[in-house]
Amino acid sequence: MLNDQAFDILFRTARSHNKWRDKPVSDVTVAALYDLLRWGPTSANCFPARFVFVTSAEARARLGGCVAPGNAEKVATAPVTAIIGHDSEFYEMIPKLFPHNPKARDWFVNDPALAEVTAFRNGTLQGDYLMLAARALGLDCGPMSGFDNAAVDREFFPGGTIKSNFICALGYGDPAGLFPRSPRPNFDEVCSIV
Amino acid sequence: MLNDQAFDILFRTARSHNKWRDKPVSDVTVAALYDLLRWGPTSANCFPARFVFVTSAEARARLGGCVAPGNAEKVATAPVTAIIGHDSEFYEMIPKLFPHNPKARDWFVNDPALAEVTAFRNGTLQGDYLMLAARALGLDCGPMSGFDNAAVDREFFPGGTIKSNFICALGYGDPAGLFPRSPRPNFDEVCSIV
Repeated sequence: MLNDQAFDILFRTARSHNKWRDKPVSDVTVAALYDLLRWGPTSANCFPARFVFVTSAEARARLGGCVAPGNAEKVATAPVTAIIGHDSEFYEMIPKLFPHNPKARDWFVNDPALAEVTAFRNGTLQGDYLMLAARALGLDCGPMSGFDNAAVDREFFPGGTIKSNFICALGYGDPAGLFPRSPRPNFDEVCSIV
Repeated sequence: MLNDQAFDILFRTARSHNKWRDKPVSDVTVAALYDLLRWGPTSANCFPARFVFVTSAEARARLGGCVAPGNAEKVATAPVTAIIGHDSEFYEMIPKLFPHNPKARDWFVNDPALAEVTAFRNGTLQGDYLMLAARALGLDCGPMSGFDNAAVDREFFPGGTIKSNFICALGYGDPAGLFPRSPRPNFDEVCSIV
């Protein structure tokens, strides 16, 4: 098992950041991040997530035009903002990604509702792998849902099969931008053992 | 940042397990698991996930009656199977959980479609926190989507507002039950830096 310091980095003292230090995140770090997150499990290894890492001034400005007012400064100042999307035609990769049962492709081709919920659920899991892998690499995260999904899709996923899910600023957070930490429910409020 | 051993435990060598050693998981470990996972971020600290930890012979049999044939043995032999659900009325806790803006409750009360997608997205993130917190504590995971959601909801979430999302066996895996590891896409197949 991991040690106390790791529990803190991943969960206990990690915070969602709102302000970002002027410290870059290299393309090598982005590649290392993907190289960790890609090993997280997905159903039938379906791997629906698609990632755009927004780093240039031009791309930040385009993304900034799609987000809620409260998120514009975050996107403008974070060294990287990841757009986590999922491909509704993820099943086309299954024959390659799930070699012990290539026909699993048909489960999804023949059931569009199953394909849709699978893409959203597993793409979200993969967005979470991104956040925890980022923390494992010493980065801070600032996940955001406050943006115009259709506008982001037009700008960054123009092919039409990929839908944006959430976005996540990545970098080195400035603790000056943190709110006091909000409470969490106690075990008995949301859990049971049966 | 974490070390190489932690990267392996969380991502690189961790596997989804299918067979389980006869080694128990105590209620104290389940409580410790919750005490880590609950710190993972959710949108507006909305915390929609609800967890049932199935451990008794009686509850395992009930859950076993709801899963796909290929998952019955897993549920019967894992010391714990967590049912991850999300409460469609999660917003009732927002005044308590998001004290710096209690009116965030109204964002969801007034927009049922937003409430639904928020519950599913953030409940899925929290199911992922459960998996990675479990690995951090030295447990193995066996996540499963192959079950009858409506049947599980009737058995384990009879109040009607909580919907099951996925289930996850927890315990100490037997490597004899592993398949060869499936490949993952390379960076350029699913990522871009713009």
